[in-house]
Amino acid sequence: MSTKLKILETALKLFNENNSQTATTNHIAKAMGISPGNLHYHYKNREEIIFKLYLQLRDEMSLSIDELPKNIKELNQHEKLLVKVQWKYRFFFRELLFLFSRDRALEKQYIKDNLAHRGRIKLVIKNLTTSNELEIPNEASLEYLVDSILMSWQFYTSHMYTLGHTLNENLSEAVIANTTNAMKPFIKDK
Amino acid sequence: MSTKLKILETALKLFNENNSQTATTNHIAKAMGISPGNLHYHYKNREEIIFKLYLQLRDEMSLSIDELPKNIKELNQHEKLLVKVQWKYRFFFRELLFLFSRDRALEKQYIKDNLAHRGRIKLVIKNLTTSNELEIPNEASLEYLVDSILMSWQFYTSHMYTLGHTLNENLSEAVIANTTNAMKPFIKDK
Repeated sequence: MSTKLKILETALKLFNENNSQTATTNHIAKAMGISPGNLHYHYKNREEIIFKLYLQLRDEMSLSIDELPKNIKELNQHEKLLVKVQWKYRFFFRELLFLFSRDRALEKQYIKDNLAHRGRIKLVIKNLTTSNELEIPNEASLEYLVDSILMSWQFYTSHMYTLGHTLNENLSEAVIANTTNAMKPFIKDK
Repeated sequence: MSTKLKILETALKLFNENNSQTATTNHIAKAMGISPGNLHYHYKNREEIIFKLYLQLRDEMSLSIDELPKNIKELNQHEKLLVKVQWKYRFFFRELLFLFSRDRALEKQYIKDNLAHRGRIKLVIKNLTTSNELEIPNEASLEYLVDSILMSWQFYTSHMYTLGHTLNENLSEAVIANTTNAMKPFIKDK
């Protein structure tokens, strides 16, 4: 693995263990046994490392339009992948709005990507009405359902944390159950 | 206003403007025109200030059991108050899980209070079934609805922010609309 990639991997580990602010670039360099100068040859500062980690996470979770789930079974499969990516980059979702306040370029990029992500969720839900698995009475219900699914993906694990649940790799069940519950009132032939 | 309270007010203003980490206790003292020593006479460190601000916010939003909303109209009224408190202490909700990673005593207290808060929401929903406004088919639906309402209160404004909405004092409409949408499938005589 190149030093450039190894820095990202080490930073991710340290950020996940506690938070992104207690692990300085000096800590990251020390944990790898390289000099701070060597680290700074690859990355200007911690914000650049976090931005690169975000781009990695985005690439790992994104599907192209023609790969989108076409039925609830495929959707659940895809959600399992999403939850794994979320767990891998868990510091990012824990600190989301705080990280935005530290780096407005990250905020701008995330919001742009998130709007596209929301658009893809809407397409998936429309696929599920086409395949006759869901019946959505009106546009307002559609918008609400899309937001519920996106909010679940972004914040449901944080929500569980605020209720004292210990988070671990096997979160997929709970997140998928939450999404299923959101869709339940719209499932045909219950 | 006492210096002790004025410190809290100044810290809250600075935290809301950007985040809780860029405003050090030295910045807070400087903004008030007092010495760092004077500030530290009242509060040991920034964590103590944040903890006190959390206790304030908790007291401002809490209702005793006999004041809980008994119908949807009263619930909407109460939500208007909750959203105002949330806006006043907005840095806190933006940084929630990050703040926990900085102060495990805060995390412990918040989770304890949040579980009690969840219990009160459940009581309110049960009131709404008693008053015949809602019909909840089973325990699983009840738990899901209670979580949806609590998650909405904790994270819906953050969710809106991740979609590029500018947050302001008039958030109540959107948060109340989200809660109403969550209850919609269970409202009787739609």
